Amino acid sequence: MKLLIPGPVELDSTVSNAMAKPIMGHRTPIFSEILNECWSILKEIYNTRNDIALITGSGTSAMEAAVASVVKDSDEVVVIEGGKFGERFGEISEAFGAKVNTVPVEWGKSFTKEDVEKVVSDSNAKVITLTHNETSTGVIHNAEIVGKIAREYDMLFIMDAVTSLGGDVVETDKWGVDLCVSGSQKCLAAPPGLGFVAVSNKAYEAMENNQKRKAYYLDLLRYRKALKKETTPYTPSVSLIYGLNTALLRIKDEGINVRIERHRKLARVFREAVKAMNLELFADSSCASNTVTSIKIPEDMNDDDIRGNLLREFEILVAGGQAHVKGKIFRIGHMGNVQFGDIIQVLGAMEIILKRKGHSFKLGEGVKTALEEFL
Amino acid sequence: MKLLIPGPVELDSTVSNAMAKPIMGHRTPIFSEILNECWSILKEIYNTRNDIALITGSGTSAMEAAVASVVKDSDEVVVIEGGKFGERFGEISEAFGAKVNTVPVEWGKSFTKEDVEKVVSDSNAKVITLTHNETSTGVIHNAEIVGKIAREYDMLFIMDAVTSLGGDVVETDKWGVDLCVSGSQKCLAAPPGLGFVAVSNKAYEAMENNQKRKAYYLDLLRYRKALKKETTPYTPSVSLIYGLNTALLRIKDEGINVRIERHRKLARVFREAVKAMNLELFADSSCASNTVTSIKIPEDMNDDDIRGNLLREFEILVAGGQAHVKGKIFRIGHMGNVQFGDIIQVLGAMEIILKRKGHSFKLGEGVKTALEEFL
Repeated sequence: MKLLIPGPVELDSTVSNAMAKPIMGHRTPIFSEILNECWSILKEIYNTRNDIALITGSGTSAMEAAVASVVKDSDEVVVIEGGKFGERFGEISEAFGAKVNTVPVEWGKSFTKEDVEKVVSDSNAKVITLTHNETSTGVIHNAEIVGKIAREYDMLFIMDAVTSLGGDVVETDKWGVDLCVSGSQKCLAAPPGLGFVAVSNKAYEAMENNQKRKAYYLDLLRYRKALKKETTPYTPSVSLIYGLNTALLRIKDEGINVRIERHRKLARVFREAVKAMNLELFADSSCASNTVTSIKIPEDMNDDDIRGNLLREFEILVAGGQAHVKGKIFRIGHMGNVQFGDIIQVLGAMEIILKRKGHSFKLGEGVKTALEEFL
Repeated sequence: MKLLIPGPVELDSTVSNAMAKPIMGHRTPIFSEILNECWSILKEIYNTRNDIALITGSGTSAMEAAVASVVKDSDEVVVIEGGKFGERFGEISEAFGAKVNTVPVEWGKSFTKEDVEKVVSDSNAKVITLTHNETSTGVIHNAEIVGKIAREYDMLFIMDAVTSLGGDVVETDKWGVDLCVSGSQKCLAAPPGLGFVAVSNKAYEAMENNQKRKAYYLDLLRYRKALKKETTPYTPSVSLIYGLNTALLRIKDEGINVRIERHRKLARVFREAVKAMNLELFADSSCASNTVTSIKIPEDMNDDDIRGNLLREFEILVAGGQAHVKGKIFRIGHMGNVQFGDIIQVLGAMEIILKRKGHSFKLGEGVKTALEEFL
């Protein structure tokens, strides 16, 4: 089966096989060496000099670690929405007792500086959250703007870079991201089950002053303490670390800039081909993601017409819409190890499905456009 | 290297290799089948009809899920101590704002019904915690007694069965354990990185009435909701689930009772051999664990004399003492796939090390006793 969901992604066989290596003691110098190599390469990809907490857990656990470590009951938080993951920061903040001030953003669109400033200036929030690349809509947001506002208003900037890190530019330090969250199973093409948070000194200070934080497993100060001893506070998933380490070495081999350029080019190729098939993109062209593309399902078709047929006849798994766009869009992940061949493969299958359903377009136009764009 | 730490343990090659299988979509019927098989076998091992939350995270994440889902600010909790993991429940409870009433237990010993009742009757706690098998001391506690007290005082019983489940009897339903916590990398001989909580209806009710719980990633009600759709609330670690599934099938093949008997016998063999080498066991014989044995370091030796030499000359990794018994004891895990050969191997190495250091015992007596006991 071809996996073209926006994560987890297919693994290179060197990464899969690394996970089959014998378990080693996790409190040994040799395991610390592996961890150190992971931290070192992750810092390059993150563009940061900050510590990186390495959490055994899904991406959401890392989002929660960021929020729960710096937020306490009745604190105010500004949450920039615009999709399921943007909204998730609000849900987490509320679960930890915070009052959420939302910056509403239409799904598929982005926000302006003014949209954010309006909410920030009306609030007493000391924390602002953004999902950099919104997986549910296929939108990449302008993180730099949010970083500037956060600095200006002396707020902590929490950013979810789960589906941007390794596939698009993430300038953690330059943008002033205080808690930069990511996960293993997306653009890094490592196995699912590891979350990361790059933590600034300003964020550490906030945690130290946040004695009422409700966190233990996800308390980032415990990760800092363990980091000083080149380890993790709790038994890490040794096998997943093997996989991550190998995936990161592969990224280093490819070169992070080359990798980002690959994502950018394939995303452009894919979007142009989709448009040539007379399909409508869901995300605004001004903010289209380089790692996931969302496409409107034509009005005379349903989700199963597209996704069901892709799976049944072509064994290609793509994602559906979530929440209020369920059944209205489908989403294709082109992140991690994805190559031109994967793009052509799904485009070809889509053309056949659409033609059979009587969709109006010139057969072959999608694939041809992809070839042209790639050249 | 031979791993005889009390987890993570060595994996069978079928389990390691399972992790190398290609990633599949986690929201697919075929992945739900794998999850269902895991849940079904886990329930047998747990002796429960309750739901089992399957968490991507270390054992501590599952401990926290149990506590954070049912405890809120200012609640009282009774914590039975007696070791690092018993005490950890207190640390987690306090991190979530609870007032902790401890039942102090001397390390290496267990408690009486009266010890617990005294604290319970003096408190207003609605929750009591116990670490069933205390990995830091090598003690197995009487969980049945605690279950009876919990029923009598209408408390929720949270039990950490991280190093007992799969290696000793765990009667979740019979003992009335409302939140029974475990992990993958110990007696189940699966890769580290997965935590479990078996949740009773009484515990679910308490969560529903605990609107102020501070939990999101570790909120067990979210796991229940996902369970009804045969899935997990957040992207699970697909590779680890492959490994767990294979490990559980192997346990089913061996038979859970046969497996527990193997642990019991090897633990007895090991303890008798250690005593025959004129070493002193740390845990009281009345409550010695079947999955981990702690041994006092002779007064004229230090930790490196034993553990350093085991590692350097024999490539056997065992664990040291933690907290106030650091440097005073060492701990050997005999859980998971451990066999007689592993026991003989470490005993032989220990004899050589001890003899060289001038320890007073008859060379060969440890190994001989092991053979006799095994017969």
